[in-house]
Amino acid sequence: MGLREFIKEYFLSFWDYETPKVMVVKNRTLGFIYRSVQFLVITYFIWYVFISQKAYQESENRPESSVYTLMKGTAVHGDDILDTVEYAQPSEGGDVISTILRREVTYDQRHGTCAEYFKVANANCTTDSDCIQGEVNFDGHGRRTGKCIQYYNHTFKTCEIQTWCPIEEYAVVREPPLVEAINFTVFIRNSIHFPRFKVLRGNIKDASNKRDMHRYLTKCRYDEEKEPYCPNFRLGYIADQARENFSELCRTGGVIGVFINWNCNLDLDPSNCKPTYSFRRLDLRKDQASSGYYYRFAKYYSKDGVESRTLIKAYGIRLDVIVHGHAGKFSPIPTIISTVTAMTSVGICTIICDWIMLTFIDKNEVYSERKFDEIIKEPTVSMPTELSYISSFGSNHSDLSDGVPL
Amino acid sequence: MGLREFIKEYFLSFWDYETPKVMVVKNRTLGFIYRSVQFLVITYFIWYVFISQKAYQESENRPESSVYTLMKGTAVHGDDILDTVEYAQPSEGGDVISTILRREVTYDQRHGTCAEYFKVANANCTTDSDCIQGEVNFDGHGRRTGKCIQYYNHTFKTCEIQTWCPIEEYAVVREPPLVEAINFTVFIRNSIHFPRFKVLRGNIKDASNKRDMHRYLTKCRYDEEKEPYCPNFRLGYIADQARENFSELCRTGGVIGVFINWNCNLDLDPSNCKPTYSFRRLDLRKDQASSGYYYRFAKYYSKDGVESRTLIKAYGIRLDVIVHGHAGKFSPIPTIISTVTAMTSVGICTIICDWIMLTFIDKNEVYSERKFDEIIKEPTVSMPTELSYISSFGSNHSDLSDGVPL
Amino acid sequence: MGLREFIKEYFLSFWDYETPKVMVVKNRTLGFIYRSVQFLVITYFIWYVFISQKAYQESENRPESSVYTLMKGTAVHGDDILDTVEYAQPSEGGDVISTILRREVTYDQRHGTCAEYFKVANANCTTDSDCIQGEVNFDGHGRRTGKCIQYYNHTFKTCEIQTWCPIEEYAVVREPPLVEAINFTVFIRNSIHFPRFKVLRGNIKDASNKRDMHRYLTKCRYDEEKEPYCPNFRLGYIADQARENFSELCRTGGVIGVFINWNCNLDLDPSNCKPTYSFRRLDLRKDQASSGYYYRFAKYYSKDGVESRTLIKAYGIRLDVIVHGHAGKFSPIPTIISTVTAMTSVGICTIICDWIMLTFIDKNEVYSERKFDEIIKEPTVSMPTELSYISSFGSNHSDLSDGVPL
Repeated sequence: MGLREFIKEYFLSFWDYETPKVMVVKNRTLGFIYRSVQFLVITYFIWYVFISQKAYQESENRPESSVYTLMKGTAVHGDDILDTVEYAQPSEGGDVISTILRREVTYDQRHGTCAEYFKVANANCTTDSDCIQGEVNFDGHGRRTGKCIQYYNHTFKTCEIQTWCPIEEYAVVREPPLVEAINFTVFIRNSIHFPRFKVLRGNIKDASNKRDMHRYLTKCRYDEEKEPYCPNFRLGYIADQARENFSELCRTGGVIGVFINWNCNLDLDPSNCKPTYSFRRLDLRKDQASSGYYYRFAKYYSKDGVESRTLIKAYGIRLDVIVHGHAGKFSPIPTIISTVTAMTSVGICTIICDWIMLTFIDKNEVYSERKFDEIIKEPTVSMPTELSYISSFGSNHSDLSDGVPL
Repeated sequence: MGLREFIKEYFLSFWDYETPKVMVVKNRTLGFIYRSVQFLVITYFIWYVFISQKAYQESENRPESSVYTLMKGTAVHGDDILDTVEYAQPSEGGDVISTILRREVTYDQRHGTCAEYFKVANANCTTDSDCIQGEVNFDGHGRRTGKCIQYYNHTFKTCEIQTWCPIEEYAVVREPPLVEAINFTVFIRNSIHFPRFKVLRGNIKDASNKRDMHRYLTKCRYDEEKEPYCPNFRLGYIADQARENFSELCRTGGVIGVFINWNCNLDLDPSNCKPTYSFRRLDLRKDQASSGYYYRFAKYYSKDGVESRTLIKAYGIRLDVIVHGHAGKFSPIPTIISTVTAMTSVGICTIICDWIMLTFIDKNEVYSERKFDEIIKEPTVSMPTELSYISSFGSNHSDLSDGVPL
Repeated sequence: MGLREFIKEYFLSFWDYETPKVMVVKNRTLGFIYRSVQFLVITYFIWYVFISQKAYQESENRPESSVYTLMKGTAVHGDDILDTVEYAQPSEGGDVISTILRREVTYDQRHGTCAEYFKVANANCTTDSDCIQGEVNFDGHGRRTGKCIQYYNHTFKTCEIQTWCPIEEYAVVREPPLVEAINFTVFIRNSIHFPRFKVLRGNIKDASNKRDMHRYLTKCRYDEEKEPYCPNFRLGYIADQARENFSELCRTGGVIGVFINWNCNLDLDPSNCKPTYSFRRLDLRKDQASSGYYYRFAKYYSKDGVESRTLIKAYGIRLDVIVHGHAGKFSPIPTIISTVTAMTSVGICTIICDWIMLTFIDKNEVYSERKFDEIIKEPTVSMPTELSYISSFGSNHSDLSDGVPL
């Protein structure tokens, strides 16, 4: 034929529809297996992928989050009154806020020379010769002057050092813990934003009446059952939830994570998108050697024109506010993808059943003979040589093994 | 046959090629539907998956990011000059920096006894008996001494408390807002690193000439159109971009997110990998009761040997610098996967078209008869019972149900 | 037939098993290609997907992490002793901690009037008329009084300003760097938690004996080979690892990232889940104009009843502790999914081989004739018009184009 016919024919054949030929096997066992596998696959997809995993949703994790924290409460300490300004740090109210529970204060330190702490390596001495001048011991407090002096009002002697005097170990005043702190509250305001879905949510109910709202916010205390929308958390409550003993926290200090979890299904009303709180101690407990939380800071002042400081070693609770978020919303693309995957996955059934069929229940090979194209009537004899139709599907067809030419 | 033949035959058959048998239907309607569906699937993959989603790229989100911030500007306050050291906190210049816009200062507080704020629950009194000694009210300022005294220079009386005196509510001095702050600038240096791709980028143009660069960096102000590479942001500009009224921010304070978005296609030249900035207020607005941003801190000093403090309630803007990043680069693996998925997904067309064919346009079942293997000539009679080849594809072949040979 | 038969027949047919008919081609070339492609696909899945990508595991990135840092060391500065309280900020010990390496101190600043820095735009003057009263220059230090005064003990004159006097540029005292800082250590405690797997790990060995542990933790220094479990990092070591020159860091300051990487295969014993550390400088180096790290802060005190401050411009190292984590654990669902995908992907082989077969090695179209269903015997003559079975598979069947019945 000529080129024109060929092109024409080719163009026509483009509009043909091709569909695989199928063999139907009337076999209860096989049919049952087939349908069961199919059922499993479909169930898996409908139940797990679609219902439990919500594969029909476009989702977004890790929302933009903003946390603002504010401590509240007053503690009495002998004649000393501690308000938030004293025990809450840093003052800026970010997502990490720490409150002091116990202080070890060293008053009136100033630059000068005094005796080194006796536990510091080779600080003990009897004569000046025991103290190398200018030496700075890493664990020590300062530079040795080379003198060997009396250890404050004790009988033994240690090397004199140049440092902030007196040294903490000697002059420290251990204050009792702020037991009142158990009733302190931390106000946590968290607002999140899912950029993709343009959804903005906060952990505080929108105020119908501002004055009432304000009063509510100052008075309420968070409680999972009773007050789920109150953003004021009692330190005692937090410690309980984290299964920690508050008085022990006062002793060693600790880091507690405040987890705010947002799990939003935006196919429902946004008002269902509410935070849940959980609390967990973050510094390792088992390993007491390194758990706990404390830090040192100083208040500086000039006394009689001399720069002085009050050194404070503060044991406390550090609250790390950690926000998790997940939002999902129906979207056609993932739905299509999941559906297609589901449909194609059904193909797996055939693979399994073919294997079963051909291996176990292939009665006198009538299935394999039908499945695998055999010669029905063949004009040429040459063909068997170049192609004879035999299953390679693990089922052996002894009679066909020698590719009988008809 | 013997085992040898079997093994030989089996080994040979391993090298056979199996391909499904296909029925070709010359039917315009069907062909058209088939090709259309195919076209849709292919288009979807090429356009959405490959072009829009860049499925041929290996991608990395969340780069390692480092932010350094530095406030600049001078504000005049009566005889008081405020420089960054006074209004910018924390000083370390991390990714959260706040600047004070308005202060409510309580000068010269010191430990002592004074009258409780009259608005505190049952603080008002007429006789000492109204004040329980040692009581500490949560909303109050300190511990009650049990006395009932005059409320500073007013006529009425409240319970005396032991606290920092005088109390803030009475002695506070409300300073006017720092309107000059609208011209303060914050220098934001951000450098990111995509570990997988070993790409390091910064939001500051590399300097050809250091001196010029330095001058540029000190003088310039960021502007989306004119100065996209200048890392100095005017607070006023930030407020505008966040659609906030600066003077109102001065009143209530607020938290504003500075979002730095890196979207890098590393198949192009890395120089195309540039940041874009966006600004949004992060503390909820709607709910005025709880929006805003303020914090308290104190400056301590010893006056005539007595520890005193200046308590400052600071309203301000807190800038949270939040960095988003995404980088993609061609990689064979994802390309192969996507291609394979595309090809397999085309299989979906057959499923749809078969259903259409067999349900709607199956003229006198000629298609189903051809698609589904029927008996052409049958040696045994027993067979139909154990297997007769009939479609179960929803199309009913009443005449075939008893397996009539044509 | 009646409805009953139809339903019965339909129900029966539901339990039929359908399997595609397959043509087996005894052709070495084709068989070889087929098996090779199959081999490639399977290898890819077994090696890449399963072994290298661990697709059989359910994985979790981004664990909950808590970091606690503590600086240690003593530096001597002439008669001045600096301990952590002085050079480490912020004191709270979060995941960002900075240490001062060099200070530029301006002592005894107080509110007053003094000469503006001569480099400030139009600060130089000869007569008062050169200074506009009340003007506040952005780069300047304060508000101009309108006077033109001598620049401290110099001969030339600049405008008088109201500010903290004296100005930094004039009165600043540049201290030598704290070279001892190279031996300072930072204690980094990091504990992570994978919520999905309920796995809690820390970077400190659990203590068998607390006392020993404690001594170990105070004495040891981290070293990748010798001391992988010691959480004390020498600043010098960190700088080396980040390939930075410490003395240059002292000059310009810098931001260094401390990366803690957790890569946990939870199918193994959890004790194999150990952190690895890496260090990298985060502020851009190339662009010297903007690299480096410094910040300003002040110590306030009242001297003779006047509020004074010591302004400190501190160059230092800021350590950003960044925690990465990945945990994987065997889970049936992903295993199934990956397996199914693998099996379905094998389908790709047929597509490729069919194309090869029909295009290159389709000897006198015997394959396409067998693959594509032809008419064997046809009762009606009308049929060929509406359906004749011809390949549209790119191979042209000129002789079949008119649907010859055999």
